[in-house]
Amino acid sequence: MSATEDIAKDYYDYPDWNMENPVPTKVPAEVIPPCDPTADDRLYHICISAISLVVMLILAFLARRMKLADGQKRSLLSPVNFLDHTQHKGLAVAVFGVLFCKLFLRLLPVFSPSEYWIIVSLFYYPVLYFPLLACGTLRNAVGYVLGSLLSWTHFGVLVWQKADCPKTPEIYKYYSLLASLPQVCCLAFLSFQYPLLLHVSNCHIFLTSCVLLLQDLSSSYYNDYVKNILKKKKPSKTRSESLLYSHMDCFGKSTPQLCFVFPAFTVLPVTQMALVFVASVVPTLQIVRQGINEDIAFLLAGFNIILSEDRAEVVRIVVYYMWCVEVCYLSAMTLSCSVNLVMLMRSMVLHRSNLKGLYRGDIYSVYNCQRSIRPSRPALVCWMGFTSFQAAHICLGMLIQTIVFFLCLLIAVFLIIIPIFHGQNLMLFKVLGNMWPFWLMLFSVVVVQHVTTRFCFIKKSAGTRDLHNRGSLFLLTYLLFPVNVLIGVVLGVWRLVITALFNIVHLGRMDISLLNRNVEAFDPAYRCYAHYLKIEVSQSHPVMKAFCGMMLQCARQDGAEKKARDAEEGIQLVNQEKKPQHKVSISKRARGHWQLLYTLVNNPSLVGSRKHFQRQSNESFFNGTLNWAAKEGTKKEAGNIEAGKETEAVTN
Amino acid sequence: MSATEDIAKDYYDYPDWNMENPVPTKVPAEVIPPCDPTADDRLYHICISAISLVVMLILAFLARRMKLADGQKRSLLSPVNFLDHTQHKGLAVAVFGVLFCKLFLRLLPVFSPSEYWIIVSLFYYPVLYFPLLACGTLRNAVGYVLGSLLSWTHFGVLVWQKADCPKTPEIYKYYSLLASLPQVCCLAFLSFQYPLLLHVSNCHIFLTSCVLLLQDLSSSYYNDYVKNILKKKKPSKTRSESLLYSHMDCFGKSTPQLCFVFPAFTVLPVTQMALVFVASVVPTLQIVRQGINEDIAFLLAGFNIILSEDRAEVVRIVVYYMWCVEVCYLSAMTLSCSVNLVMLMRSMVLHRSNLKGLYRGDIYSVYNCQRSIRPSRPALVCWMGFTSFQAAHICLGMLIQTIVFFLCLLIAVFLIIIPIFHGQNLMLFKVLGNMWPFWLMLFSVVVVQHVTTRFCFIKKSAGTRDLHNRGSLFLLTYLLFPVNVLIGVVLGVWRLVITALFNIVHLGRMDISLLNRNVEAFDPAYRCYAHYLKIEVSQSHPVMKAFCGMMLQCARQDGAEKKARDAEEGIQLVNQEKKPQHKVSISKRARGHWQLLYTLVNNPSLVGSRKHFQRQSNESFFNGTLNWAAKEGTKKEAGNIEAGKETEAVTN
Repeated sequence: MSATEDIAKDYYDYPDWNMENPVPTKVPAEVIPPCDPTADDRLYHICISAISLVVMLILAFLARRMKLADGQKRSLLSPVNFLDHTQHKGLAVAVFGVLFCKLFLRLLPVFSPSEYWIIVSLFYYPVLYFPLLACGTLRNAVGYVLGSLLSWTHFGVLVWQKADCPKTPEIYKYYSLLASLPQVCCLAFLSFQYPLLLHVSNCHIFLTSCVLLLQDLSSSYYNDYVKNILKKKKPSKTRSESLLYSHMDCFGKSTPQLCFVFPAFTVLPVTQMALVFVASVVPTLQIVRQGINEDIAFLLAGFNIILSEDRAEVVRIVVYYMWCVEVCYLSAMTLSCSVNLVMLMRSMVLHRSNLKGLYRGDIYSVYNCQRSIRPSRPALVCWMGFTSFQAAHICLGMLIQTIVFFLCLLIAVFLIIIPIFHGQNLMLFKVLGNMWPFWLMLFSVVVVQHVTTRFCFIKKSAGTRDLHNRGSLFLLTYLLFPVNVLIGVVLGVWRLVITALFNIVHLGRMDISLLNRNVEAFDPAYRCYAHYLKIEVSQSHPVMKAFCGMMLQCARQDGAEKKARDAEEGIQLVNQEKKPQHKVSISKRARGHWQLLYTLVNNPSLVGSRKHFQRQSNESFFNGTLNWAAKEGTKKEAGNIEAGKETEAVTN
Repeated sequence: MSATEDIAKDYYDYPDWNMENPVPTKVPAEVIPPCDPTADDRLYHICISAISLVVMLILAFLARRMKLADGQKRSLLSPVNFLDHTQHKGLAVAVFGVLFCKLFLRLLPVFSPSEYWIIVSLFYYPVLYFPLLACGTLRNAVGYVLGSLLSWTHFGVLVWQKADCPKTPEIYKYYSLLASLPQVCCLAFLSFQYPLLLHVSNCHIFLTSCVLLLQDLSSSYYNDYVKNILKKKKPSKTRSESLLYSHMDCFGKSTPQLCFVFPAFTVLPVTQMALVFVASVVPTLQIVRQGINEDIAFLLAGFNIILSEDRAEVVRIVVYYMWCVEVCYLSAMTLSCSVNLVMLMRSMVLHRSNLKGLYRGDIYSVYNCQRSIRPSRPALVCWMGFTSFQAAHICLGMLIQTIVFFLCLLIAVFLIIIPIFHGQNLMLFKVLGNMWPFWLMLFSVVVVQHVTTRFCFIKKSAGTRDLHNRGSLFLLTYLLFPVNVLIGVVLGVWRLVITALFNIVHLGRMDISLLNRNVEAFDPAYRCYAHYLKIEVSQSHPVMKAFCGMMLQCARQDGAEKKARDAEEGIQLVNQEKKPQHKVSISKRARGHWQLLYTLVNNPSLVGSRKHFQRQSNESFFNGTLNWAAKEGTKKEAGNIEAGKETEAVTN
C-alpha cells in the first residue's frame, strides 16, 4: 500500500492548504501508469501522411483523366463553395469539427507557444485532413471509395488508441477518452457519409453527373425563393405563432432549405468545451471529496473555523459542502451550455432576418446606418475568419459564463439556501433583517411617489393627461431628494448587475453589439459580423442567382453541342443595341426581358443601385469576360463567372 | 512618548499583516484628542430649527399681508418651478448642494441603517434647509433680509465649528475640514446671493414686482427661440466648428440661455466624491509610508520576499513602492474626475440635441422607436427622482472608475514601468518574449490575409469590385481556420476589455443606454432618462410657451384694471364659433390667428397631433378651466394653468 501511495501521490498531489500543519490526505487506491498505445502517435502520423499523399495523387490523376474525358475542369484545391447555401455541407462541417477538436485538445493542456511544433501543428493539421474533404469534390465513385477508406483509417486508429489506453494519468483517468468524444463523432459521421454518398451516386449515376456540376445555380432554392417573395402576402400571424415559426424555421424543411455552415458547426465548440470542463474539474472535486478524513477538523481549527465539536460530524459537513460545490459547478456548466445553445438559436433567427432584410434593401434597420453592400478588403478578411471567430467567441463566452454562474450559484447556495435549510449562519438574512427599516422606507417612498402621482399630480380630462398641483409636485420633489439619492444608488447597482449579466450572456454572439447603439462599430466582434454579412449578401442574393440560373437553363435547353456559344448568346440579351443581328429566338429574348423587368419591379432596391454606373462601360465589360469564359470552354467556370458578373447586371 | 504612543495607537492602528510575527510599526508623533466644538451640534440644531420656524412664520405672515394688499396669492410651499428653464436657479442649486453634501457626509462614515436617526435625518435635513429656499419665493426685501440672516447663521456656525476643531481624530486629521468644503462653498454662495438679490430688488423695485411674477412666460427666451427657428438657415458649419460650438453652447450666452438644473448641480457630487476619496485614502497611505522601518525586511522575509540583502535598501525600496501606489491612486482619482466631467459635458450636449430633436417631433431618432410624448405616471415619478438618480449614478460611477483605473495603473506601473526603469522583474516581458513566435505568426497571418485579399481575391474593374479566384479563397479559408480560431480568442478578449471599459466610463451617464440597441429599455437608468425627457418636452415646448406668452402679453396691454376679464378674452380667440359676439378688437384676433397658423405651419409635428381629439370637447374644457381661473383672480395661477392648457391648444 505504501509503495503505491508514493507513486500515486505524484499524479494526485494537490496543495496541502497550510504549510504549518501538513495533513496527510487520504489517497485513492487506484493507480494508473502512463500508457503508450500500440498505435504509436508518431508512427501513425507518418503512415497517415503517406496514405493521404497517395490518395491526393490518385485523386489528381483521376481529375486529369476526367478532364480529358469530358473536357470539364475539376479543382481539387477548392473543395467547398462556402458561398453556396444550397450545397449540402455535411462533409465540410465534419472536417472542420475534427480540425477544431484536434487543435483544442492539442493546445489546451500544453499551451506554451514558445514550442515551435505548436505553430507547425496549426498548419499541419489542416493539410493532414484536407484529403478527407478533397475525396468528395470529384463526385465520383473512386473518390468516395478513397474517402471511405481514409475516414475509416482515421476513425479506426483513433478508436483503437482510445480502446488501448482508456485510462491516462492526466487530470482524470478518463479525461482523454471523454475529451475526444466529439472528434470520434465527427470521424464516425465521415465514415458513414462517404459510403452513403457512394451508394447514392451508384443509384443515380446519370442524374448526379449532370445536375451536381452546376448545383448552386440550378438548385430550385432560388426559384422557390423568388416565387415566394412574388406571392401575395397572407394575413400575418399572431406574434407568438410567428416567433415559434421563426425558431422552427432554422431546422424545418417547410421553407426553402437555406442552411448555414456556422450554426451546425458552432454546436461543436459548445459540446467540446462542456466535455472538457466536466472531465477536468468534476473528477478532481470528487477525489478531494473522497480524500476528506478527520484531519480536516484540525486543518479548519488552524483557521479558527470550528464547524462542530465532533470530528466525524465535521467530516460529514465538509463532505456535504464539497458535494454542494460539485452540484453548483455542474449546474453552472449546464446553465452555460443551455444559454449558449439558446443564443445560437437566436443568432440563427437574427441572421436569417438580417439576410432577408438586406435582400430587401432594408440596410438601415440592420446596420442602423447607411452602408454600401459591396465586397471590400476588410469585409473579405472578416468573412474568411468568421466561422473561426465565432467558435473562439463561444469558447471564451462559455468559460466566462461558467465562472460567473459558478460564483453566483456558490453565493446563492452558501449564503441563502444552506442557511435556510439548516437554520444557522444566517449572516445575509441578519444583515437584511437589520436593514429592514431602511428597505421599508425606500419601498414606501417609491409607493408614495407612485400613489401621489397617480391621484394628485396627473389629471385626466378630455382624453388627455396633464400635470396638476404643480406646487405640491415641486415641494415633494424637493423633500424626497435625499431618499431618491439612495434609490438612485440601488438603481445604479441594479444597472451594473443587469449590464454585466447581459454582456456575459451575449458574449458568444457576434451578431449583436454589446455597446450602445451610437458606438456599435467599436465592438470588434459585431464589426466583423457586419462585414461578413456584406459579403454574404453581395455574393448570394437569391434573386440574382435565380435570374442567372434561369438564363443558364435557357441556354442549356438548346442542346449540349452549342454550349460555348449559348453562354455568349444568353448574355447578348443585355447588349442588343450594340449587336442587333443576334441568333437568339424572339421568344427567348422576350422571356429574358420579362424576367429582368419582373425582378426589378419587385425588388426596387435593385433598381435604385442601377444608376450608379454607365450602361455602356458595363456592357463592354460583360462581353469581354463572357467571351473569354466561353473560349475557355469550361462550363463550370463560366457559370461561376456569370454568377459573379450578373450580380452586377442585376444590381446596376 | 510611550504614553502618547498608546493613545495614538487607538486612532492609527492598522492591521499587522501577519499574526505570527507581529512587527511594531512606527507610530507618528502627532496625537489629536477628540475635539468638541464650542458650537455643540445638538444645541445648534435646536437653535437653528427654532430660528427656521420663526422665519417661516414671518414669511407666512408676510405672504398673507401681500395677498391682502394686491390680491395675488404667493405659495411659500412651492419655492422653485423646476419646469421653468428660464428662471435663475442659483438658490435652488445651492440648497440642493448643501443637502447632498450634508447627507453624503452623514451617511458615508456610519452607514448602519438600522439606526432610526439616519432615516429621520433623511427627512429632517430637507425640512431644515427649506426656509433658505422659501426666503427667495416672495421676491420681497423682507424675505431677502431674512434669507441673508439665515444663510449667514448657517454659514457662520459651520465655519466656526470647523475653525474650532480643524483637526479631528478621524481617518485623517483634516478629513472633516476637507470633506465639508463643498458644503461651505454652497453656504457661502447663499450668503452672497441673498444680499445681492436684496440690492437688485431695491434698485429695480418697480420693475421686478411686475416682471418677475410671470417670469416664465414673459421671458424673451421663448420668443427668441421661435424667431430663431423661423429664421432662414445659414450655410451649415463644418463638423469641427459645430462640435466646438455645441460644447460652448452649454455655457455661453450667445444662444438663448436655456440652462438646466442638473448639469450645474451634478458637478457637486464629483467634487464631493473627489475630496472624500483623496482625504480618506491618501493620508493613510502617507502614514503607512512614514511608518515603514527596517522591520519590514523581516516581515517580507516571512513571506519569502527578499528585495535586497541590505535592510536600509529594503526600506528604501518599500517606501518607493508605497509612493508609486500613492501616485497611482491620485492619478486614478484625477482620471476618474476628468472622465466624469467630460461625460457631464457630453451629457449636456446630448440632452440639448435630444430636446431640440423632440421639439421638432423627431421622436424616432431620439428613442429609436415611436413613443407618445405625454405625461404618464411612471414618467412623472422618474422626473421627480431624476436629479437625485443622476447624482447617485455619478457617485457610484466615480467609485467604480477609481477602483478600476487604480488597479489598471498599478498593473501598468508595477509590471511595465518600474521593470523597464530598473531592468529587473521583467516577468511580463519575459512571458511576451517567450511568446514572440506565436504573436509573430498571428500578425503575419493577418497580414497575409489582408495582402492576398487586396491583390488576389478582389478585382476592381469598371468601377465595381467583385470576388476573384474563388477556389483559392475557399482553400485559404480552410487552411487558416486553426490560426483564425486563435485570432478569434484575441478578438474576444479585446471585445471583453473594450465593452467593460466603455460601460465603466459611461456608468455615470443616464442619457445613454449601456445595452444593445434592441434592449435599451432594460437599462433602468436610461429608461428613467427617457421618461424624464418626456415630461421635460411635453411641459416646456418653447413654441407653445412663446404662444402662451404672446397671448398673455396682448391681454396685459389692455390695462391692469381688466386683468381678470382679459385672461378670459385671450382665450375667446379659440372658441369663436361658440361665442361670435366677443369684445376683442379685430386686429388682436387676427394677430392671434396668424400666430397660431404660423406656429403650426412651421411645426408640422404639432399639426399631426391635433387630430387626436375632438375640437368641441376641447374647447368647452378650456372655457371651463379658464373661467374658473379668471374667477380665482390670481393672475399667476391663471398663467400657470393657461400654460398647461395651451399646450393642448397648440398640440391638438
